Amino acid sequence: MNQPASPAPLFERVALIGVGLIGSSLARLIKRDGLASHVVGCAKSRASLDTVSELGIVDSATVDPAEAVTGADLIVICTPVGTCGDVAKRLAPGLEPGAIVSDVGSVKQAVIDAVAPHIPEGVHFVPAHPVAGTEHSGPEAGFASLFENHWCILTPPPGCDQTAIDRVAEFWRRAGSHIEVMDPKHHDLVLAVTSHLPHLIAYNIVGTADDLGSVSGSEVVKYAGGGFHDFTRIAASDPVMWRDVFINNKDAVLEVLGRFNEDLAALQRAIRWGEGDVLENLFIRTRRIRREVIAAGQAEVPKPKPDENGGI
Amino acid sequence: MNQPASPAPLFERVALIGVGLIGSSLARLIKRDGLASHVVGCAKSRASLDTVSELGIVDSATVDPAEAVTGADLIVICTPVGTCGDVAKRLAPGLEPGAIVSDVGSVKQAVIDAVAPHIPEGVHFVPAHPVAGTEHSGPEAGFASLFENHWCILTPPPGCDQTAIDRVAEFWRRAGSHIEVMDPKHHDLVLAVTSHLPHLIAYNIVGTADDLGSVSGSEVVKYAGGGFHDFTRIAASDPVMWRDVFINNKDAVLEVLGRFNEDLAALQRAIRWGEGDVLENLFIRTRRIRREVIAAGQAEVPKPKPDENGGI
Repeated sequence: MNQPASPAPLFERVALIGVGLIGSSLARLIKRDGLASHVVGCAKSRASLDTVSELGIVDSATVDPAEAVTGADLIVICTPVGTCGDVAKRLAPGLEPGAIVSDVGSVKQAVIDAVAPHIPEGVHFVPAHPVAGTEHSGPEAGFASLFENHWCILTPPPGCDQTAIDRVAEFWRRAGSHIEVMDPKHHDLVLAVTSHLPHLIAYNIVGTADDLGSVSGSEVVKYAGGGFHDFTRIAASDPVMWRDVFINNKDAVLEVLGRFNEDLAALQRAIRWGEGDVLENLFIRTRRIRREVIAAGQAEVPKPKPDENGGI
Repeated sequence: MNQPASPAPLFERVALIGVGLIGSSLARLIKRDGLASHVVGCAKSRASLDTVSELGIVDSATVDPAEAVTGADLIVICTPVGTCGDVAKRLAPGLEPGAIVSDVGSVKQAVIDAVAPHIPEGVHFVPAHPVAGTEHSGPEAGFASLFENHWCILTPPPGCDQTAIDRVAEFWRRAGSHIEVMDPKHHDLVLAVTSHLPHLIAYNIVGTADDLGSVSGSEVVKYAGGGFHDFTRIAASDPVMWRDVFINNKDAVLEVLGRFNEDLAALQRAIRWGEGDVLENLFIRTRRIRREVIAAGQAEVPKPKPDENGGI
């Protein structure tokens, strides 16, 4: 228990659609801190549902989204962003007036475009993005403290019910997150820079290294300590989740990737022509940015506690 | 003390030319474990020498390389690789027959080309590269355990005295390192992939993010937890050291950078055309590589112990 005392549940019945790293972490959190009276787990995989049932982190489980949301006052879609529209369509028939639908997608505009048309009158849609994760995925990988000291960005559409926004914000505050409200398009650009581009580059560099025939795979692995190992960690993130992020945030990712490529071409040229001052000036600047990141307290990411982490 | 008992010193007198992160870590290690009877610190900066003298990790200190190496049976050049040739030229007049000259440079062929011509007959040159470092630099940043469980790669030239190689290898083994012997050109290619390219990319991405006018600097810093923070750490490495690495390993860095760019162009195209399977297949492959890195024990880098770390 992180809370000194258990306050009243925020919600009567929470339906988690998807029980991977994020969904199962929410289930653990809700059960640990009593944030809802009942948690329903929903997944297309029966094996995943069996896992969360055995872990005792859901009160009931179903493969049917419409059944899962019946009677729920909070529904959180925790599936890869490419599936959110289809999931919303399938759960919509079970939604009840006054319910709040939220999500956890790393892309916001595409999710809003896909989900909003399926939300009936009288149901509130409050898109959210908890900026938290690990290189592990699946229901065993979750842990209740995943969201502590991380940002959760809400991107409510114009005219969204303020009470619904406040309730979702309070839910994430109880998860230990800091709340920010942002325009969805702006969110997608900010995250393209701070998260999507870094992941893309990490995936790419690990692939390039693996392909290099003149340096055997075992040598790349053996000397990974020289910088490469940080990239391999990032490049181990969930393949389907990240595939969907890049496809669904195409414009912003291509925009920042274009700038990255221009800058890299300039660096490449500086190396070829031995322009040491160009390199040194950049490296001095990036070192300063690191100091700012440390000062902003974003340099340390909380580690999973073994007892909460399902054996991962 | 890491050693259960203090064995006899390996060397009578060790001269460390350069007392930054690596040089001062070696000084701490040699004093802690009694690896030499006397340690001389040499640096062009009087302030750095005052620091290591005050820290009590050298027995004597001088700004004159030739004076520093007089009477030394091991000389370790710990300056940025671009300066090694000049340093060798300046220390050469003080070298005595039978002495061993080594270095710690992240690039080997360029260092050999620059240093070897200055090494007199009867002095042994055993180039070395301890693959270890942190984002911090300077004499205060060093710590004795920096090299533990890291690789140290030796690249002795053909005909190098085997006893000298063995003595340098034993020195690094006592530092806690694993020893590998490699051809210098091959070293430079392997490290271009596993260390130099990752650093270049990290420097570049942090610079790109800093330049993006539409995402304010504070937002980039605020949401760095989504992947960016790992890059800022790598991109905070010593600017002069890394400038010299790229300039002095130009051919190998440009070779692997060319491949990286080709691969990135293919990924960019896959995103533009919505080819999710191309992305997913790569991401599945890179996740497997992460597992290999973890299995090889290279994923965890030792943290400095506060009591050895001079306040950083």
